Amino acid sequence: MKLIVKRIGFSSGIPQVIIDDSVAEALGVKPHDRLLVKYRGKEIVAEVNVAKEVPSSSILVNEEVWGGLELQEGAEVEVLACEPPLSLRYIRDRLKGIRLGYDEIKTIVKDIVAGRLTEIELTAFIVSYHNDKMSVDEAYYFSRAMVETGRVLGLDRKPILDKHSIGGIPGDKTTLLVVPIIAALGYTIPKTSSRAITSPAGTADRAEVLMPVDLSVEEMKEAVLKTNGCIVWGGALQLAPADDKIIKIEYPLSIDPFFIPSIMAKKKSVGATHVVVDMPIGMGAKIKNEEEAYYTAREFIEVGKRLGINVRCALTFGEQPLGYTAGPSLEAREALQALRSIGPKDLIDKATGIAGLLLEMVGLQGGKAIALEALKSGKAERKLREIIEAQGGDPNVSVEDIPIGSKKFILRADKEGNVIRVDNRIIAHLARLAGAPRDKGAGVVLYAKLGDKVNEGDPILEVRAEIGSKLRIVEKYLENVKPISIGRIHEQMLLKSISVSPVVGGEIYIIR
Amino acid sequence: MKLIVKRIGFSSGIPQVIIDDSVAEALGVKPHDRLLVKYRGKEIVAEVNVAKEVPSSSILVNEEVWGGLELQEGAEVEVLACEPPLSLRYIRDRLKGIRLGYDEIKTIVKDIVAGRLTEIELTAFIVSYHNDKMSVDEAYYFSRAMVETGRVLGLDRKPILDKHSIGGIPGDKTTLLVVPIIAALGYTIPKTSSRAITSPAGTADRAEVLMPVDLSVEEMKEAVLKTNGCIVWGGALQLAPADDKIIKIEYPLSIDPFFIPSIMAKKKSVGATHVVVDMPIGMGAKIKNEEEAYYTAREFIEVGKRLGINVRCALTFGEQPLGYTAGPSLEAREALQALRSIGPKDLIDKATGIAGLLLEMVGLQGGKAIALEALKSGKAERKLREIIEAQGGDPNVSVEDIPIGSKKFILRADKEGNVIRVDNRIIAHLARLAGAPRDKGAGVVLYAKLGDKVNEGDPILEVRAEIGSKLRIVEKYLENVKPISIGRIHEQMLLKSISVSPVVGGEIYIIR
Repeated sequence: MKLIVKRIGFSSGIPQVIIDDSVAEALGVKPHDRLLVKYRGKEIVAEVNVAKEVPSSSILVNEEVWGGLELQEGAEVEVLACEPPLSLRYIRDRLKGIRLGYDEIKTIVKDIVAGRLTEIELTAFIVSYHNDKMSVDEAYYFSRAMVETGRVLGLDRKPILDKHSIGGIPGDKTTLLVVPIIAALGYTIPKTSSRAITSPAGTADRAEVLMPVDLSVEEMKEAVLKTNGCIVWGGALQLAPADDKIIKIEYPLSIDPFFIPSIMAKKKSVGATHVVVDMPIGMGAKIKNEEEAYYTAREFIEVGKRLGINVRCALTFGEQPLGYTAGPSLEAREALQALRSIGPKDLIDKATGIAGLLLEMVGLQGGKAIALEALKSGKAERKLREIIEAQGGDPNVSVEDIPIGSKKFILRADKEGNVIRVDNRIIAHLARLAGAPRDKGAGVVLYAKLGDKVNEGDPILEVRAEIGSKLRIVEKYLENVKPISIGRIHEQMLLKSISVSPVVGGEIYIIR
Repeated sequence: MKLIVKRIGFSSGIPQVIIDDSVAEALGVKPHDRLLVKYRGKEIVAEVNVAKEVPSSSILVNEEVWGGLELQEGAEVEVLACEPPLSLRYIRDRLKGIRLGYDEIKTIVKDIVAGRLTEIELTAFIVSYHNDKMSVDEAYYFSRAMVETGRVLGLDRKPILDKHSIGGIPGDKTTLLVVPIIAALGYTIPKTSSRAITSPAGTADRAEVLMPVDLSVEEMKEAVLKTNGCIVWGGALQLAPADDKIIKIEYPLSIDPFFIPSIMAKKKSVGATHVVVDMPIGMGAKIKNEEEAYYTAREFIEVGKRLGINVRCALTFGEQPLGYTAGPSLEAREALQALRSIGPKDLIDKATGIAGLLLEMVGLQGGKAIALEALKSGKAERKLREIIEAQGGDPNVSVEDIPIGSKKFILRADKEGNVIRVDNRIIAHLARLAGAPRDKGAGVVLYAKLGDKVNEGDPILEVRAEIGSKLRIVEKYLENVKPISIGRIHEQMLLKSISVSPVVGGEIYIIR
């Protein structure tokens, strides 16, 4: 059938067309089926959308079709129904509970990268792995296929060290210390990081306070060759790009069945040979207990082995934020202070602990002491300033140069006692309500952490915002939640009673 | 934030807007998040799409937003990020494996009908029930919620009889006989049917050869009050409309986790009190064996009980097509002949068997004999003609009035022997390649069925098409597949060897 194209003027990630329902019937296609669209020797496969108001001689095309076929307004294209891609067959197999082999997975990953799967198909595929966990084989196949369908850094060095935190606790600025410690000791650590999705700051957001992080692969490579390290945003590098499309589906559903291949593919694509995976454990963290941590660690290690990456998992305390701050600028300040050994003990302990593990993996003994010495001697701070300069930032930046939100609200203890609980989720939400990560100066400063003794009226937490109206939303939110609980353990047993379905944004408490 | 609207001019089932990525960042929203759009006291929640070429002062809106807010070109709307609906919270619970109660399910079904869930969310929800089967409680809650969110027929009669086939075998024109038999005997049977999705003909497609089936609820009710029965297309009646949205997601994935509530909600919405569910069993049918059938039957019966519907399940032979034809017009012809008792024995046996079960459920004895008598006496045929007239068709239609495709291809036996296998999927695919269901006269006529003795060169199957080019595609397809296998059981054991992943459209054979 021949149809006249009309440009819609927006892109949706995959090629899509809109046709009238009478045209769809004549072509024998339904919504979400596929059409082959041909124009001057070029062809493209597009997802079908059906509408009622489209002239029956027309086909509306999005930017992917428009650009892919190099169309002009009013061009006549040939369209015909076409078979779904082979990967849909494999996705249907997966929905039947069948395990996939490397060839099937490679085919699917290729089609994900090329945008040949519809949102429905990709969602079904991802959810199927949420409900029926990926095998180690599959996790390895996905990691490999994701690397093979993207760019690689291609550093001609060995060993290449790397670290990754599976996240979940606010204020975790460990990477800002680990990268310069490792690089200062002469080892290569080409770190890519993500921006915050649901947290107040991702490592890329924190680092961006100090230096540009939107580097190209070439710029990243140059920085690493010069300084041994970098901290760049991984989102635009096209390293394992399938991952980015998968995350877009996982995010609104709050699930992450692909997290092991996602992480391992990114590590492989920078050529990592030794990786420490930081796994914070706690009620308010992603991993709830040690047993779960061991299970996940085994998978990381196993997948790493097959990819030729030596992996160690570090189980870390995740019951409260790391250090005393959450929010990009507050955290960048705290990291700079820690590099001068005046930062919080838990942050320094964790950063040197993880750096130490990496050093021991490449053959050194007493890794943590070596890492601590690199910090105390000022070598790590000097290295961070080198990296800042290599990435295009100001190497002389000081804590005072980093502005933080001028509006503040202080929360005070409503009674005397000890801090018995710090709620990661509420703290993260507070910082986001205050404007983080978009408002870099917004965030939360803690005055009291687990076990600390407080008197009634003592400040226990401060929220910083750049915009006054956001601070008022914070104050309103604080009327109903307790980010920091004070009391004596085993005295207050009934936390809350549940009578109806919890509403969105509400917290579920446990009666124990 | 205030933005100027621009109409995109197509509808996508749910309200959607497209904004520039800079606008999305300023609003703090990501693709698939939700925006509240306000205009002159009205407001609507729309899904966010993000593009790069949109002017930062504009917001592109689809027809759902345009119509919902009664916008004009150039209107200025107020937009702000908004919380996802409560049902998303419940969908996330479901993804954690949690069973849902009635209130949660009702909330979700309401949001499905109102188009408040994104495609990703709805797909994830449906797939979660594919991987972790719905409980009987949930199936009942869904049925109830689907009825409550749609229209109902509201006949003031009792009992109301109904039947449903879960499908899977081509040529199943049972309904065209059961409805007039039951109605002729004075019982009410307000039958709604579907069109073909992947088969050569749905009951609505077959019936449409004889009479209009696109009736409104009011027209349907009128026809039933006049004749006791009807056969109408259920797709546009807005009975249990959530079902239609769910099927649109299930179809491209070839899954149907909602099939029990989908069916039972449709039955409840026409007020059915007694229902026979026909379950064809066989290697090439939806249900593979008796054990599976019992399991499914128990669920139908249990859900029926809670809805106040008496359900019986009929396990029927599903290893080959019913009767000798597949395709709308061929089947309508065959049904008319069967109503004159000159149709195929299996069709008459099945139709009177199912009608008989229904009659016994309302207290009659020897139901099948009564049904057969209604057929043989001509009462059922007269009733069908009454129904045809009441729905606006020609009551005097004869077999000869129904045109069938003039192009034909005859397949002949390649050896002497008995028919040992008739492949439902290949026969269905043949009829569809020939043009069915769109070309009503296209389809397949069988000359030999299971057990029949054939000689080499005997015609075993005929394909009819309206369009010659489609017949040539059929001939090409027949070079590689065997719709009818001839041989002696236990002589040909190796059917096919599998060496590589099967390709789309290919068939998987079993080596036994």
